[in-house]
Amino acid sequence: MIVGIVGGGQLARMMALAGYPLGLRFVVLDPARDACAGQVAAQILGEYDDVEALAELARRCDVITFDFENVPAVALERLSAEVPVAPNPQALASAQDRLSEKTLFRELGIGTPAFAAVDSLQQLEAAVEAIGLPAVLKTRRFGYDGKGQRVLRERAELAAAWDELGKYPLILEGFVDFTREVSIIAVRGRDGAIAFYPLTENRHEGGILRLSRAPCTDAAALDAQAQRHARALLEHLDYVGVLAIEFFDVGGTLIANEMAPRVHNSGHWTIEGAETSQFENHLRAVCGMSLGATQARGCSAMLNFIGRLPAPAAFLAEPGLHWHDYGKEARGGRKVGHATLRADEPQTLAAALSRLQPLVVAD
Amino acid sequence: MIVGIVGGGQLARMMALAGYPLGLRFVVLDPARDACAGQVAAQILGEYDDVEALAELARRCDVITFDFENVPAVALERLSAEVPVAPNPQALASAQDRLSEKTLFRELGIGTPAFAAVDSLQQLEAAVEAIGLPAVLKTRRFGYDGKGQRVLRERAELAAAWDELGKYPLILEGFVDFTREVSIIAVRGRDGAIAFYPLTENRHEGGILRLSRAPCTDAAALDAQAQRHARALLEHLDYVGVLAIEFFDVGGTLIANEMAPRVHNSGHWTIEGAETSQFENHLRAVCGMSLGATQARGCSAMLNFIGRLPAPAAFLAEPGLHWHDYGKEARGGRKVGHATLRADEPQTLAAALSRLQPLVVAD
Repeated sequence: MIVGIVGGGQLARMMALAGYPLGLRFVVLDPARDACAGQVAAQILGEYDDVEALAELARRCDVITFDFENVPAVALERLSAEVPVAPNPQALASAQDRLSEKTLFRELGIGTPAFAAVDSLQQLEAAVEAIGLPAVLKTRRFGYDGKGQRVLRERAELAAAWDELGKYPLILEGFVDFTREVSIIAVRGRDGAIAFYPLTENRHEGGILRLSRAPCTDAAALDAQAQRHARALLEHLDYVGVLAIEFFDVGGTLIANEMAPRVHNSGHWTIEGAETSQFENHLRAVCGMSLGATQARGCSAMLNFIGRLPAPAAFLAEPGLHWHDYGKEARGGRKVGHATLRADEPQTLAAALSRLQPLVVAD
Repeated sequence: MIVGIVGGGQLARMMALAGYPLGLRFVVLDPARDACAGQVAAQILGEYDDVEALAELARRCDVITFDFENVPAVALERLSAEVPVAPNPQALASAQDRLSEKTLFRELGIGTPAFAAVDSLQQLEAAVEAIGLPAVLKTRRFGYDGKGQRVLRERAELAAAWDELGKYPLILEGFVDFTREVSIIAVRGRDGAIAFYPLTENRHEGGILRLSRAPCTDAAALDAQAQRHARALLEHLDYVGVLAIEFFDVGGTLIANEMAPRVHNSGHWTIEGAETSQFENHLRAVCGMSLGATQARGCSAMLNFIGRLPAPAAFLAEPGLHWHDYGKEARGGRKVGHATLRADEPQTLAAALSRLQPLVVAD
C-alpha cells in the first residue's frame, strides 16, 4: 500500500519511518527541495495547491493524508473523488478556521474561551466590550506556533492591532488564566474504533512547544474529560486518523484551545513512551488496519529543539534518551529535532531532565 | 554522517530506519535491484566484491559496515585504508571461517563442541573416530541458516557426505545434546565501552530461527557466562559494533555454536523490547557515539516469518504486537518479516503467543 502525504516536514518523515515496518511505502508532496521527509521517502516537488502535482500524488498512491493543516481543503476535497483522503477534508476544514472550530466545540459541549468574530475595528471594539481584556486577537486561518496572533491588554492597543492583522478574517478570544496546558492525542480507525493516549502536559514559550511530559500526573478526572471531548469530535466529524486537541486546565476543568487534524508535536513522546506511536496509529487508521495499543510505557519527557540542535554527546550519554534529528538545516525558530527521555520511575526521569534541560539552547 | 552498508537486506533496512533519527544517512551496496534496504536508503547496484562499486561506496560514505558476514574480508581490508570499517575486517575474517572461529573460542576459554578440520575422506574418518557420532559436517565458510551442513549419524553415511560437501574446506563438529539454544547480543563502542542485552532463548527449525524469547528466564548464571565470553571476544578482536554469539545451554554450561559479526535475527526483539535497539546501538558504536541503554522493557517474543507473511489482521489486532514487513517478495525459505510481541507480564505474553503462533505458516 502506498501512502501519499501532502507536506514533507518532520511529521511526514516520522510517519514514513513508522510506516515502513507495516509494509507501507510513501510519496510526499512538498515544494521544498530539501524537505526533510524527502530524505526517507519519494517526493513530488510541487505546491500544495498545484492541481497537477496533487493529481500525480493521487495517481501514485492508494490513500492520502497530510502532515500539516494548512493544506487547501478544496484541493483535498477534489482529490477525494479519486483516492481516499484521511482525515476527511471536512474535518480539515473545521480545524482550519478558528471560528468554525470554536463554534463546533461549543455545539459539542466542549468548553472554549469566550470568542467573537472580528471583521472590522467596530466589531473588535464590541468584542472587547463583551469579552473584556486581556484577550487575544488571532487570524482565523493559517496561524501556527503563535504566529498571526496578538495579546491585547489595553483598549489603546485596539487600533494598532487592527492595523496589523485586520487584512485577515479575525477572531477575538478571551484570555484564559490556566493552571497548565495539556493535550490529548486520540485516534479513530476506519471501523470506528477509538483509542486515546494518556494526557500530555505541555509547556510553550513564544508560542512554540518546548517541553511535553506524559502521562500527565494526577489527571484521571482530566483524562476522562479530554476523552469525552475527543470522542465527541471524532464521531461528529466521522474522523479517521490521529486528532490532537490542546486544552487549558483551569482548576480541573478543560477549556479547548485548538485542535490539530494530524499527528502532533505533543505526541512525539509516544514513539518510545507508548506501546504504539501516534505515527504508526495514524497510519494504521488511515490504511484501515486495527489500532495499536496506546498505553504508556513508564513516563516520558520530550524536549523540542528549536533553531538548532544542541551538542548531542551529553544527550546520547543519558540512559533512556532517544534522539531525533529531523535532517534539517539550522534556522531560527525552526523545529529541527527533539529528544525523548523515558524512564520507569518519575524520579529517574526528573533527575535526567534536570541534567539535560539546561543544555537545550533555542535560537 | 553517511553510513555505507555492504549488503542491502532486512538488517540494513532496519539499521537505516533506526539510524535516521540519529541524523545519519545511508548508502547500501547490493547486487539485487529489489534489495529491500534500497526502498529506504540510497543504493549502489553492484556485487560485494566489485572493486569499483566498493570504491564508490567508500567515496560516498564516512564509515562502512555490513549486514551479513559473507562479504569478502580482503575487499573490506582494502576499503579500510580509505574509510573506517566497523566491525574491523579481521573480526569479520575470524567469524567467516568456522575453524578459525572455534579455534579462537578455545583460545579464549569459551567452550565449543569437539571439532576437527576435514579436507579429505581420510580426515573425515579420523575425525569421526576421535569425535564420535552423531556429528555435524559443515562447510567452513559461507554457511547460513543451516545451509552447507549435514548431520552424520552412521559411519555408512561418510562417503556420501564427503561426495556432497567435499569440494569445500570442511569442519566436523561433535553433536551437542543441548537443553536449549540461547544467544547474546553484545555491543562495543569506539571508546571501548561494552553493553549487553539480556540473554535470548531461540528455537530453530530446519536450521532457521523461528522464535526468540527475551529476557531468557532463570538465566542469571547463564547471563554471566555469556557476558564473560562476549567480553573476551570483543576485547580480543578490538571489536566495534554489535556482535552476536549463539550458544547451546548444556545443563547450565554454555557451549558456543557460532558468532555473527553484525546485528542478528535473535536481537530483533530489542526494537520494541529494549530501551535502545540493537540496530541503533550498532550505529552508535560504528559512528563513535555513546552506547544506549540495553535493558529490557518487559518481556518479548519474536516470531520469524519465513517464505511469506501470514495474514496481518489477527496479528495487528493483538495488543503489544509489532509488525515488521521487510518489503520483500514471497519466496520459499526467505526471511520476509517478523513480529514482536511485547508485554509487561510473562503470562500476558504467553497467552498472546499461543494465539498467534498457530497462524504463522512457513513456506
